[in-house]
Amino acid sequence: MKPVKIGLLGLGTVGGGTVRVLTRNRDEITRRAGRGIEIIAAAARNLDSLGDLDTTGMRLTEDAFEVVEDPEVEVIVELIGGLSPARELVLRAIDQGKHVVTANKALIAHHGNEIFQRAQEKGVMVAFEAAVAGGIPIIKAIREGLAGNRIEWLAGIINGTANFILTEMRDKGRDFNDVLAEAQRLGYAEADPTFDVEGVDAAHKLTILASIAFGVPLQFDRVYMEGITGISREDVAYASELGYRIKHLGIARRSPRGIELRVHPTLIPERRLIANVDGVLNAVLVWGDAVGPTLYYGAGAGAEPTASAVVADLVDVVRALTIDPENRVPHLAFQPDALADTRILAMDEVETAFYLRLRVVDQPGVMADVTRILADLDISIEAILQKEPDEDTHEADVILLTHRVREGNLDQAIGRIEALSSVIAPVQRIRMEALR
Amino acid sequence: MKPVKIGLLGLGTVGGGTVRVLTRNRDEITRRAGRGIEIIAAAARNLDSLGDLDTTGMRLTEDAFEVVEDPEVEVIVELIGGLSPARELVLRAIDQGKHVVTANKALIAHHGNEIFQRAQEKGVMVAFEAAVAGGIPIIKAIREGLAGNRIEWLAGIINGTANFILTEMRDKGRDFNDVLAEAQRLGYAEADPTFDVEGVDAAHKLTILASIAFGVPLQFDRVYMEGITGISREDVAYASELGYRIKHLGIARRSPRGIELRVHPTLIPERRLIANVDGVLNAVLVWGDAVGPTLYYGAGAGAEPTASAVVADLVDVVRALTIDPENRVPHLAFQPDALADTRILAMDEVETAFYLRLRVVDQPGVMADVTRILADLDISIEAILQKEPDEDTHEADVILLTHRVREGNLDQAIGRIEALSSVIAPVQRIRMEALR
Repeated sequence: MKPVKIGLLGLGTVGGGTVRVLTRNRDEITRRAGRGIEIIAAAARNLDSLGDLDTTGMRLTEDAFEVVEDPEVEVIVELIGGLSPARELVLRAIDQGKHVVTANKALIAHHGNEIFQRAQEKGVMVAFEAAVAGGIPIIKAIREGLAGNRIEWLAGIINGTANFILTEMRDKGRDFNDVLAEAQRLGYAEADPTFDVEGVDAAHKLTILASIAFGVPLQFDRVYMEGITGISREDVAYASELGYRIKHLGIARRSPRGIELRVHPTLIPERRLIANVDGVLNAVLVWGDAVGPTLYYGAGAGAEPTASAVVADLVDVVRALTIDPENRVPHLAFQPDALADTRILAMDEVETAFYLRLRVVDQPGVMADVTRILADLDISIEAILQKEPDEDTHEADVILLTHRVREGNLDQAIGRIEALSSVIAPVQRIRMEALR
Repeated sequence: MKPVKIGLLGLGTVGGGTVRVLTRNRDEITRRAGRGIEIIAAAARNLDSLGDLDTTGMRLTEDAFEVVEDPEVEVIVELIGGLSPARELVLRAIDQGKHVVTANKALIAHHGNEIFQRAQEKGVMVAFEAAVAGGIPIIKAIREGLAGNRIEWLAGIINGTANFILTEMRDKGRDFNDVLAEAQRLGYAEADPTFDVEGVDAAHKLTILASIAFGVPLQFDRVYMEGITGISREDVAYASELGYRIKHLGIARRSPRGIELRVHPTLIPERRLIANVDGVLNAVLVWGDAVGPTLYYGAGAGAEPTASAVVADLVDVVRALTIDPENRVPHLAFQPDALADTRILAMDEVETAFYLRLRVVDQPGVMADVTRILADLDISIEAILQKEPDEDTHEADVILLTHRVREGNLDQAIGRIEALSSVIAPVQRIRMEALR
């Protein structure tokens, strides 16, 4: 089947990331979508500043409307941001019968009601997963995954810049202005940081989340907004002393009298999982009446995390366009004829680090014997914890953490260690993973 | 439009939960799905043991095949568990052209390849979100939300019983057998706990997750399985001393030589978010090449959390059956004609707790004045932190944490407090949320 033809508006950070992800994962994406996804046209503000981005096969222009009008283009991906001309471009694309994928939270928060109504009339799709919390599929989770619930409330760390600043203030006892300057140097904050530190960006996202959670129209102008500029390092320290962390949250909650929509710094108990979401990362905690609390965590911004959401939306669009509705999403994610026969490794081929607990007689030379056996099998040691021997039995626990080793080697080492006369019980071993 | 007619197999814990959620949230679910969902027939092993479950409008039988054969039934929800007769019932339903929603992880892990092939041939849907991690929409997240990624690895706490036991062993320094007995008393562990503590249940779920992450067939018999019965409280304590937590993880990872599929206790660094997922809760950490790490957290079992996933699948099925593919999922989750005009509260109507920081002159009566003002406005105090006064200026910070109060009242209180001569700077106030 012919690939779906995409027109891309914007070749900046996220646009570039989208091009790279679609290229690098072409095979996997096609196996999932059942059909290729090909960018045939793209618009950038300045075609001279594309760097080393590979735009092979794309008709390039500096006039975004040209891409929108291109009769071959089936889906428009809008990644230029801002309200205008994004709104005009998206509405024009819809009028042309083209589907739209956008990462533009401001556009959806301000003009979503109008855009969705037009899309409904024209029978086209408008997908916007990338508009909230970057690569975290939070729109899909709420809109589909929690569709059985009455959502009671949600609270999200949905601005990475603000979270980075608050995290640094706490970890290093630094002042707001000091950290903001660093965030700007690192590229986590814009030269004009207003949208991030005053809560406007978070309010855009909260507008969208609240609407899909509660089934109310988008109403950005009703969101209460308070930024983090007023938080002092003393506040952060006092909160900590009392067992709390200060996070900049977007909160939407039903109450008997109406819906609360508010963005502001918030003290939350430090034991909550979401209190430990640090740095530029995002997380959204959603409370449904049936499921209870669920939390979604990941990168909320950045080229490829945002591209991840854009491409997921494209796959959704392609699946809807291509496949009969009853098998829109393949059971096992990939098309039935595209499953791979990759082999599954036997356990002795698997590499992990290990925790080893040895029960030994406290006598000279034990550790020398053990470490010699490990060295002979190329197993290196990350840490040793030697406990005091028992006064009566002169037996002691020795704990070794190894670096990554092939399990087959470790098995051999354990065999030899257990054969030592000074090792008086089977060796306990537990695998260890860094998970990063 | 007429409701979709459901036949429910199993009226036990999850079956009962599904009936209750569909009844309680009927209105919200219909607004989302665009069509009602009605259970018209149900089978239970013993119709005398349904307790107070409201089965109004359902034809009840003790013969599950009767429900499957019922010509009026459009979708079968299989919640009886186990391999047989679940397999025969599901295959029979498919042969009858009925769609299937199931929470049965053993069934999918063992017979999914056969079931999906049959469903493909017959053009019916088989949905199984509830089979992995209960109410967490992890199947949807991987299969759709991360569709742009090459998934590198995933690691999950996917058995709540094992996680509860390990959490108790660490928190209370207790032995495995001791905690297991308690878990059985609490109903977190079965009388025969083998599936949970030996890793079989986790292996079922890992089989499914690996397949949808990597695009390989389901192959339960290739999963390496190790339970938590061999973990001693000493191991838990030593791991802790070294900065690690022991978690029972299902891990699936690509390596250049093949795919690793393994379930075993694992030491992980305590700073990782997933290391802090405690008790019966589940979490799955997924690493995609574009998005990086994302984490999904929530209740992995229980009547209503599992029902949450079952109903989400039903809404998916109904949306696919009912709506044109291009508007399968409404933009704002609810059908465009079903948005509500619930009012958004003004901020002075919102109730939260507060952190207040006062800069005061250190003189008698200040606290009496402040607490009197708060009491007069019905604001009660949860905690007070009084810092040492500065030796030169005799000024000090006083921090007050309030209980929940209407923001309008708090505004009044702050006005009065700032009017006190002993309060020498504007009051800092930050909202506080328990998030539970």
